[in-house]
Amino acid sequence: MLTNERPSCRSLVLSQRAHWAADQAIGFLMQQGLENRDCLSLAAGFVDESRLPVGECRVAADALLGDLASGRQALQYGTTQGSETLRTAILHHLSHLEQVPVDQLGITREQIVLTTGSQQLLALLADALFNPGDLCLVAAPTYFVFLGVLDGVGAKTLAVGTDEHGMQPEALEQVLGELEAAGELSRVKMIYLVSDFENPSGVTLAAERRTAIVQIAKRWSKEQRILVLEDAAYRELRYDGKPLPSVWSQDPEHEHVILAMTFSKSFAPGLRTGFGVLPTDLLAAVSNLKGNQDFGSAHWNQQLLAEVMVSGQYQKHVQSVREAYRLKRDAMLAAAEEYFGPLEGVTWVRPEGGLYVWMSLPKPVETGFQSQLFQRATKHHQVMYVPGELCYPQKTGTPARHQMRLSFGVLSPELIREGMRRLAGAVQECL
Amino acid sequence: MLTNERPSCRSLVLSQRAHWAADQAIGFLMQQGLENRDCLSLAAGFVDESRLPVGECRVAADALLGDLASGRQALQYGTTQGSETLRTAILHHLSHLEQVPVDQLGITREQIVLTTGSQQLLALLADALFNPGDLCLVAAPTYFVFLGVLDGVGAKTLAVGTDEHGMQPEALEQVLGELEAAGELSRVKMIYLVSDFENPSGVTLAAERRTAIVQIAKRWSKEQRILVLEDAAYRELRYDGKPLPSVWSQDPEHEHVILAMTFSKSFAPGLRTGFGVLPTDLLAAVSNLKGNQDFGSAHWNQQLLAEVMVSGQYQKHVQSVREAYRLKRDAMLAAAEEYFGPLEGVTWVRPEGGLYVWMSLPKPVETGFQSQLFQRATKHHQVMYVPGELCYPQKTGTPARHQMRLSFGVLSPELIREGMRRLAGAVQECL
Repeated sequence: MLTNERPSCRSLVLSQRAHWAADQAIGFLMQQGLENRDCLSLAAGFVDESRLPVGECRVAADALLGDLASGRQALQYGTTQGSETLRTAILHHLSHLEQVPVDQLGITREQIVLTTGSQQLLALLADALFNPGDLCLVAAPTYFVFLGVLDGVGAKTLAVGTDEHGMQPEALEQVLGELEAAGELSRVKMIYLVSDFENPSGVTLAAERRTAIVQIAKRWSKEQRILVLEDAAYRELRYDGKPLPSVWSQDPEHEHVILAMTFSKSFAPGLRTGFGVLPTDLLAAVSNLKGNQDFGSAHWNQQLLAEVMVSGQYQKHVQSVREAYRLKRDAMLAAAEEYFGPLEGVTWVRPEGGLYVWMSLPKPVETGFQSQLFQRATKHHQVMYVPGELCYPQKTGTPARHQMRLSFGVLSPELIREGMRRLAGAVQECL
Repeated sequence: MLTNERPSCRSLVLSQRAHWAADQAIGFLMQQGLENRDCLSLAAGFVDESRLPVGECRVAADALLGDLASGRQALQYGTTQGSETLRTAILHHLSHLEQVPVDQLGITREQIVLTTGSQQLLALLADALFNPGDLCLVAAPTYFVFLGVLDGVGAKTLAVGTDEHGMQPEALEQVLGELEAAGELSRVKMIYLVSDFENPSGVTLAAERRTAIVQIAKRWSKEQRILVLEDAAYRELRYDGKPLPSVWSQDPEHEHVILAMTFSKSFAPGLRTGFGVLPTDLLAAVSNLKGNQDFGSAHWNQQLLAEVMVSGQYQKHVQSVREAYRLKRDAMLAAAEEYFGPLEGVTWVRPEGGLYVWMSLPKPVETGFQSQLFQRATKHHQVMYVPGELCYPQKTGTPARHQMRLSFGVLSPELIREGMRRLAGAVQECL
């Protein structure tokens, strides 16, 4: 070390973006997770560890690396857009999900971009579309991490009326009308929808609303295009009922709806691979931004996923995951009935899929990090949940403060039941 | 499909960021690569395919996935900051490179952030620090992809005088003095240095300049901290000469210098894993931004790298890669001597490491995509290089137009020789 001089150590001046990205809910939540390690977690959005495809990945890694040529290809740089092999496999995957032949999907693999989880796609889209002050319309409650992403680019998020069938088309029309009257229609860039088993509410957007919302987006694209972002992260985790046509399929020209999906929930989050299907004229912008960010997500992971998809292991795995989660959802619903049923004013949503049960308490009972309930639950009853207020736009509305997101992703059916028993105990003390 | 109505298809309005990120050099270059697939490529920054660690990764994947507990852990979500196991292994790695015991490095693993290649770290830092119009001081020429990242956040890039020993401290002082006189010192956020075998110039920053530049950054941190970003991507690829102390080690308090490194060049780019060592007070900002971007790079890849580092396979592999690249560098230098030696006014840098030879032609001979030389080289001689002008800030200076970056990363020694023969033929026609 060549100097004894004390550095000037002047204060660090961060960018506006860094300030916007500070104090996001996910940070508080992870901190709470760390501080409450002994709690049973009904909070974590992790997937079921016992169902992770260890054997499937071992076989696929061995197949890829057992051959020098395919091994070398997997370990070399890929492209910014991602592996052609995986993008081709995704076309077939979409064909299966959409129940139409590949050549009737109306897209080519050139419209697919592979990302680091679908989260990166959401972030790239926010970056590509929103100037500070631009508007995104969302259901309320909705996926709180995306609310943080929107905050991070200085966008404004407006909540649209939502019920047990998802975002209400008439409420959407009303908000758009008000914005037009206020001269702000040109700032509306996007309508964000978690179409299946929304995180956190478990709600599935009704079929007729899917059609209606796309029509509204088209009709209100008076000054510039209003895009619809369909976040279908949980789509493959349906436990009962018939799959609905995607929002994306309601826009056969594929000019208004962006489809975001991921392999994190259906296969393995450790591979951090998601994808988007984009309108052609949005591709270059997203690709340029991704080029600057990382010039491509890990090629090795993409090739590994292509291997399990082509071999059919992926499809088998999803089937088994679905069966396991169905049991856990049922365990949580049964425990809700058993322990919360007797408590007056407590209601919850029965999700047809996904990883979450959304529960509402009588309104005076608040659920936030500072609330009596959260403190009692984590300190005395050793159980943790996600406060519902995190899932509402913080700066442009009045979040409901009496709700909780309960995840059945991580714990076993037995521990789900025990967690629900503990939580009901804490709630009872606060009623 | 439920409608025959044509969508309004109003034009897409992109963000300011999307416009800034458009038209980057890397895009043009990749396009040229695609259009000239039949060329021998002295352009591609890819690594030597024949040296990719297929066997090492197979053993490591098998070890990780052969055990249910470690397999599940690898396939689960990690944290935004990245695997503790890999960050601990990196501490030992740094201890080896810096030649001091781990406990004298002056950091803990909490100051290490794992990213999607070091590229993502560069992008996150740009996002965390630069408001539009803020300034970054760079060597010229320098790594053109980072110039694109800076453009992408609206930063201004100023070239500092550079010679065969890297950025000149006296030139740096002069630029800072001029900025102070112009009242712009408070906009200087960063000095960017590729310390070893710079991409593209092959130049290594001299030891005494490393000390001097850190001192200058500290001394000129009058209004706010001026950070130094040491991009040490090629550090482990040294073929002769003694390793120099890092720039980072010249700042024992680790408050001014950020160290960026990657496993892409030394091991496998397909794993897309890099890392940064950050001043403590910059950690939260980078972590918040990364949380929004992807909440963590692929955990699976991080665990795989930790496995090869702990087993010692990594270190062995780097040794063998180094030997292979030394031969290829020597092949390129010998071919330069043979084919370009006879051409008057052609000079080149002999790099002690890295992947690039930097060649200057007599000034009237331009090398850009539109130049006679580039057209002749790619169309008639089937050989491609990177035009040197891409490696200078485009908007704040006059790039030199008579230089070329020649990569010996991808081709075999024989094809490097053939590529150089072809290129010399094209140059001769343009003299």
